[in-house]
Amino acid sequence: MSKLPFASDYMEGAHPNIIRALTETNLMGTAGYGTDEITCEARRKVAKACGCPDADVFFLIGGTQTNATVIDGFLQGYEGVIAADTGHIALHEAGAIEFGGHKVLTVPHTLGKIEPDVLRSYLADHAADGNYDHMVIPGMLYISQPTEFGTLYSLKELQKLRSICDDYHLSFYLDGARLAYALSTPSNDVTIRDIARLCDVFYIGGTKCGAMIGEAVVIPQKGRIPHFFTTIKQHGALLAKGRILGIQFDTLFTDDLYFHLGDYAIKAADEIRAAIDKKGRRQQFVAPTNQIFLIIDNEELKTFGEKVAYSFWEKYDETHTVLRLATSWATTPENVQKLIDLL
Amino acid sequence: MSKLPFASDYMEGAHPNIIRALTETNLMGTAGYGTDEITCEARRKVAKACGCPDADVFFLIGGTQTNATVIDGFLQGYEGVIAADTGHIALHEAGAIEFGGHKVLTVPHTLGKIEPDVLRSYLADHAADGNYDHMVIPGMLYISQPTEFGTLYSLKELQKLRSICDDYHLSFYLDGARLAYALSTPSNDVTIRDIARLCDVFYIGGTKCGAMIGEAVVIPQKGRIPHFFTTIKQHGALLAKGRILGIQFDTLFTDDLYFHLGDYAIKAADEIRAAIDKKGRRQQFVAPTNQIFLIIDNEELKTFGEKVAYSFWEKYDETHTVLRLATSWATTPENVQKLIDLL
Amino acid sequence: MSKLPFASDYMEGAHPNIIRALTETNLMGTAGYGTDEITCEARRKVAKACGCPDADVFFLIGGTQTNATVIDGFLQGYEGVIAADTGHIALHEAGAIEFGGHKVLTVPHTLGKIEPDVLRSYLADHAADGNYDHMVIPGMLYISQPTEFGTLYSLKELQKLRSICDDYHLSFYLDGARLAYALSTPSNDVTIRDIARLCDVFYIGGTKCGAMIGEAVVIPQKGRIPHFFTTIKQHGALLAKGRILGIQFDTLFTDDLYFHLGDYAIKAADEIRAAIDKKGRRQQFVAPTNQIFLIIDNEELKTFGEKVAYSFWEKYDETHTVLRLATSWATTPENVQKLIDLL
Amino acid sequence: MSKLPFASDYMEGAHPNIIRALTETNLMGTAGYGTDEITCEARRKVAKACGCPDADVFFLIGGTQTNATVIDGFLQGYEGVIAADTGHIALHEAGAIEFGGHKVLTVPHTLGKIEPDVLRSYLADHAADGNYDHMVIPGMLYISQPTEFGTLYSLKELQKLRSICDDYHLSFYLDGARLAYALSTPSNDVTIRDIARLCDVFYIGGTKCGAMIGEAVVIPQKGRIPHFFTTIKQHGALLAKGRILGIQFDTLFTDDLYFHLGDYAIKAADEIRAAIDKKGRRQQFVAPTNQIFLIIDNEELKTFGEKVAYSFWEKYDETHTVLRLATSWATTPENVQKLIDLL
Repeated sequence: MSKLPFASDYMEGAHPNIIRALTETNLMGTAGYGTDEITCEARRKVAKACGCPDADVFFLIGGTQTNATVIDGFLQGYEGVIAADTGHIALHEAGAIEFGGHKVLTVPHTLGKIEPDVLRSYLADHAADGNYDHMVIPGMLYISQPTEFGTLYSLKELQKLRSICDDYHLSFYLDGARLAYALSTPSNDVTIRDIARLCDVFYIGGTKCGAMIGEAVVIPQKGRIPHFFTTIKQHGALLAKGRILGIQFDTLFTDDLYFHLGDYAIKAADEIRAAIDKKGRRQQFVAPTNQIFLIIDNEELKTFGEKVAYSFWEKYDETHTVLRLATSWATTPENVQKLIDLL
Repeated sequence: MSKLPFASDYMEGAHPNIIRALTETNLMGTAGYGTDEITCEARRKVAKACGCPDADVFFLIGGTQTNATVIDGFLQGYEGVIAADTGHIALHEAGAIEFGGHKVLTVPHTLGKIEPDVLRSYLADHAADGNYDHMVIPGMLYISQPTEFGTLYSLKELQKLRSICDDYHLSFYLDGARLAYALSTPSNDVTIRDIARLCDVFYIGGTKCGAMIGEAVVIPQKGRIPHFFTTIKQHGALLAKGRILGIQFDTLFTDDLYFHLGDYAIKAADEIRAAIDKKGRRQQFVAPTNQIFLIIDNEELKTFGEKVAYSFWEKYDETHTVLRLATSWATTPENVQKLIDLL
Repeated sequence: MSKLPFASDYMEGAHPNIIRALTETNLMGTAGYGTDEITCEARRKVAKACGCPDADVFFLIGGTQTNATVIDGFLQGYEGVIAADTGHIALHEAGAIEFGGHKVLTVPHTLGKIEPDVLRSYLADHAADGNYDHMVIPGMLYISQPTEFGTLYSLKELQKLRSICDDYHLSFYLDGARLAYALSTPSNDVTIRDIARLCDVFYIGGTKCGAMIGEAVVIPQKGRIPHFFTTIKQHGALLAKGRILGIQFDTLFTDDLYFHLGDYAIKAADEIRAAIDKKGRRQQFVAPTNQIFLIIDNEELKTFGEKVAYSFWEKYDETHTVLRLATSWATTPENVQKLIDLL
Repeated sequence: MSKLPFASDYMEGAHPNIIRALTETNLMGTAGYGTDEITCEARRKVAKACGCPDADVFFLIGGTQTNATVIDGFLQGYEGVIAADTGHIALHEAGAIEFGGHKVLTVPHTLGKIEPDVLRSYLADHAADGNYDHMVIPGMLYISQPTEFGTLYSLKELQKLRSICDDYHLSFYLDGARLAYALSTPSNDVTIRDIARLCDVFYIGGTKCGAMIGEAVVIPQKGRIPHFFTTIKQHGALLAKGRILGIQFDTLFTDDLYFHLGDYAIKAADEIRAAIDKKGRRQQFVAPTNQIFLIIDNEELKTFGEKVAYSFWEKYDETHTVLRLATSWATTPENVQKLIDLL
């Protein structure tokens, strides 16, 4: 592939430190299923970084699997999970949540986010419905940070959502598939410790943020979900060689590598956004994280697409298209410059 | 861990060729979800090795996940899967098959195997039951080669099972988590092409046979299961970086590496078995593949267990225990010799 | 309860003919599970009335159960069912469809109906999505006749929906919980034979249309769904005393009783609607079937509610409420007159 | 059907008192979903008869539905239910429990019963398994009283099972599909109050014990299962006309009718058993309740079967068959005498 690789943040393998760690430990014999010492150390490092050293930490493999397992682990059988109508679990997980028997209850989004007032109104209407007990009972709120639109919740918004969850007895779950990029965004005011303090469960994305594969589920309150190990196994989400995940997160949470990777990708995205503005080009909306939603003329797209790998986002109008460009830990300054030259 | 590593065949990372391939391709940008060129090439190599170049090949991550996805993909909602009562899906997958809504119908085993006569008798009784349509309808036969007991089906036995599946309209599924070891066993008379010819679907185990992670599902009849890609996604079994699996199987199926790894592990196991016999020790039963079921005195086990990592199999009698020792692609001649010296 | 009974169409027991038939057959000994002769005769009568004498007919107990069983019986595991966002399966079945693993894919409604253009556009967008195979695959269209809003599809609309189902390989399912009332509505141009001709499966509602309990599922193409009997059992929807359902439908489809009951209820509803108009009162919208959506002043509602059993529909504005009033086979002329006097 | 009706205990309609009550209340307008006053009164009567006036009581429709709903309502997602390998949920419910995602964990039976020692041993082995957390976690014990074999647990046995459930944190569920017959058996020493005291949940069978349809689920500890109403709805087990069930149980629990019906059926069965002994015929085993397991010569069966409706139980040997004959509340003395004359 000689096109400039901006189609997504999962086009390359893993950060070189991870490749090195996998290589160095390769022939060590260790216990299975994540009970080995490296994985235990990775759990400690992740929990410490989140400011909750007693947290339960589990390493799973991918985003859809993690969402399905966490949501099923937290919900009772009669409960559903609330998500934005654009949420990943609502649209792009092939019904993995419903496969586990749970309905995804959707509320209208605002650039991918659930506004606290919209959520409160939805829940109040639901509770007031005369057929309340004929309906799926909301048991969890699912959001992602950043959202599918690359937008961010502010600390104040997360606090409001937490408060609504308390009022309506919902678990609060944050999907952090791209969390590194959220944390590094200049306008972000939410730390990983804030998330650990406000959420009942969240995951720290590895696949899109430097790992080869892997997501770290953090449940700040130790023992909150009994037998979650067995639930993971039941969902086919338990790796025999659990250490493959442990080694990666041990590396990512050594010397703050995870956070540095985020900084790197955001810096690249900011440069591209600055160039877009400077050159008088338009974004569909300004997402502050590692995704850029560029409006481009359909004619121009033909040549642009020969040089740049991008994702189709949606049709803008009869003559324009919205593209999604993504930076990542693997984006090189050279490629950023080449992309800018093409704008 | 300084103990001799014979506890299982998934204690190490990956064959060095795989580490090398992952390292060399690491910074390449490729398309996601297994649509990249390396993964496509891996599919071709696997299908060719199976003698069915048109086969559908899918790469999944682990055994339980693969079993749950394949079984759910093949069965109708009202169907169940027949397994030995000692089968992995019957006992050690935390209910992953039932999670997908399907009952595991168990028949008695003989050293882990389903004898054709036992199966035929079970199906005849089932079909003759006056409440036939109040019962789960058998839709698939699941076996593993080798079995949980390290035993093997002969070609003749597989042919008989195939014939019974035809008579009763069952799909025939073979779990090859340790297939490399089965294929390399001197007494084995079943080739991978036989399996592809006789089964509706099978998987070639990577995790326990040289890969870091990964299992290759082969459906010899192209297009047999519509939308299986979506079913994989629904089960949380689709990797964004699908190439991680593709690269591994591309390596394993280059220059017959997969088959050589099996030879290596079986040679080691045979040496240990020969030493057991020579030293007058006893096995609970003779499994011909990479697992050895050693009877040991409980007193002796205390010191043995300080030097050797093993798996507890079961209590033999009041004063003896059965251990499972496993060799693998990663077993070194030095460790084999050290183990023999301890016997 | 001395209030006028207009809260719903399931407030009374069964049409007297049914009580008589149940009484007369009560001490007869018959075979179980719907294999008795009366139930077989009921199947023949229903199939004949639908103009498809070879149809498969199954008697189930209630609406949610029937929807869950039919939808699960028709869909593959990876498929979902399309419904209006106000559809009963989308809102008021406590997640029964998702419990079976299937997502309800919602499209915006127009007074409870799915407009053909809206459906076609939804499906075209879905098929054009770059992530098509990461999404639930639409496998069925679910509508109800009449809808939750008491509105009706015209024959032309049903034909258009059928055509779209053909184009997109969807099964077409019509929920006829209140079908008797639809068929008897003066403005209706859809016969039960049209429905049998256009749909892959539908159910003829008994519970709300004269039966004590029971719904008749009709699958016009015999043998279309293998082992549907077992699927019914699996869903807990098989009655040991299946004849209880058979006797009722035998009665309802003797001498066109089912159709006469509809006529009766619609006549009552039309009288009430005429009185509403005459007295200058307002309906939120005009539903032509057995449900009436009356706007009433909140102050007046206090006294009205002491005399009339009604269903709360929704808040209209700060000072008004929308009530739902329903007639049925059991509505008496006396009660209709008393209600009119109160308007 | 002019054959003598001994094939099962669900061949007739309902006890005449129930038909009368349904007829008398038929045109009353009542609230739906079991919120009407008659159903509330029925709940009070059932709870009182069980000696636990605060119990939660729910009326469901049939046995498989009740088992699936109760088991799913009590279990967490990762838990399974223990049953005898001959249990109704293990064999004859078409996978309804697995449809809800739960494995049925089977233990060997003794004439349909789970012996306390067998259960304790099973649980001890399970807990001691090194792969404990890779296996389905037992969450409930399911038994039926009487069993599929018509046998009964003694009070002492139930107490032992309760104690084991306490030790292993299992819910204890008793399926009383034929409970009336168990309670009326002379050798029985278990009262309905004992059951309510010892079990976490049980159901009082109506369908086979005098009702047209219906089973009464009793959860002695009020509020034990939150939102069970919604779980019932989710399982398609909520009747719009809930009163149909309420009226029946109100009748059955007025003037101890339920218990008298049991007496009547057992007296008939005892007469038949006495005649069997007197005439030198053999039973496969002596079940003390309303089911009789008669060994009959295959030649004789040809003529016997022309006169008597029976259930095939199993082949006894090459020349004999085991039949099941069942008495019920509807068995007439005339038919008992005619059957005896045929023996």
